[in-house]
Amino acid sequence: MNNDTNVTWHEHRVSRDMREAKNNHKGCVIWFTGLSGSGKSTIANTLDHMLHQSNIQTVVLDGDNVRHGLNAGPGMLQDTHGEEFAKRFGLGFSAIDREENIRRIGAVAEIFTQTGVIALTAFISPYRIDRDKVRNTLKQGDFIEIFVDTPIEVCEQRDPKGLYKKARAGEITGFTGIDDPYEKPLNPELVLSAAEKTPDMLAAEIIGFLKNNNYIRG
Amino acid sequence: MNNDTNVTWHEHRVSRDMREAKNNHKGCVIWFTGLSGSGKSTIANTLDHMLHQSNIQTVVLDGDNVRHGLNAGPGMLQDTHGEEFAKRFGLGFSAIDREENIRRIGAVAEIFTQTGVIALTAFISPYRIDRDKVRNTLKQGDFIEIFVDTPIEVCEQRDPKGLYKKARAGEITGFTGIDDPYEKPLNPELVLSAAEKTPDMLAAEIIGFLKNNNYIRG
Repeated sequence: MNNDTNVTWHEHRVSRDMREAKNNHKGCVIWFTGLSGSGKSTIANTLDHMLHQSNIQTVVLDGDNVRHGLNAGPGMLQDTHGEEFAKRFGLGFSAIDREENIRRIGAVAEIFTQTGVIALTAFISPYRIDRDKVRNTLKQGDFIEIFVDTPIEVCEQRDPKGLYKKARAGEITGFTGIDDPYEKPLNPELVLSAAEKTPDMLAAEIIGFLKNNNYIRG
Repeated sequence: MNNDTNVTWHEHRVSRDMREAKNNHKGCVIWFTGLSGSGKSTIANTLDHMLHQSNIQTVVLDGDNVRHGLNAGPGMLQDTHGEEFAKRFGLGFSAIDREENIRRIGAVAEIFTQTGVIALTAFISPYRIDRDKVRNTLKQGDFIEIFVDTPIEVCEQRDPKGLYKKARAGEITGFTGIDDPYEKPLNPELVLSAAEKTPDMLAAEIIGFLKNNNYIRG
């Protein structure tokens, strides 16, 4: 911030408090975690829609807007930035690459939070330690972890992208729940029984939590 | 193994149009570029303050909120993520690392733009090719490049952090304008004569541009 500050002028920083006051709600991260096909993205987008209709500033971070840009894989980066660059910075699906994937998403969600926005993230984020690291970089109360608790049998039956089928056939390796672990949160702020309720019901449940905990007005 | 092919696009329920309609202004990136000490950060924060007072959704991306999180260096990552991770993903100041630094900032600014926010970025961003790559990832009109055209003599006289002095003394190498090039934009949307005007005057100039080009209401 001070790199380019002209000493003759006051710093006109717009603080997080000022942004939250203007928005009339708090910023925070709502971190959905769960298996592929558990319903994270559907619930996040349903909640997003409801919040948006209530004039709440939101963003959804998911594979759609992250894997094509910020956390692009080597294949995508190679065309625009060359081979050496793609090899160094492109993210794959190894443990260390997943760790960096989650770290960057957490960092971006934090910037949104600081801007007074409610950031909804919808990633499998299978490793407890990676999620906890994100939690620890954020201010107490800014990280709301929601476990989308759908049994793997249900997820596999849904299989919206046909990924379980591919994983069972050995066409994909390192697939969460099949040959890579999913580590449930130990103390999530919310657990959603997503196989038994509609996305609207689940989103309403989250809105209840946000109101009860004064993130948004009741 | 490259799982890039498993990334599929699907429509978000709250579109950019819906967010922009609710916010009553467009999202875009205002990309400030110029030498260290040119006034980028001061102008960005002055503009940010004016826009915020007009109920416009904004974010400022600068060294403050990017270098300590999203684009942390190896030293910072080592403590939290270990040595191998820090070595692989920590950003230094080599050309390729600067390229990735700017690429990630552009990707985050794009997400803000998609969210209907005006993202103000204040980085030296000395290389034309890196700025142009960001421009090219964005939709036509979403990238507003502003050259903060302060003569190096003025920047060096201001030297708010004493960096020019260190660079002249050889204590810092690869310093933009001294022993590393600054490449002026060839076709920026705006050029600011930042040595001759106050930050308030310059911010007002940018607001005029935003109104004339229908990013915000006149």
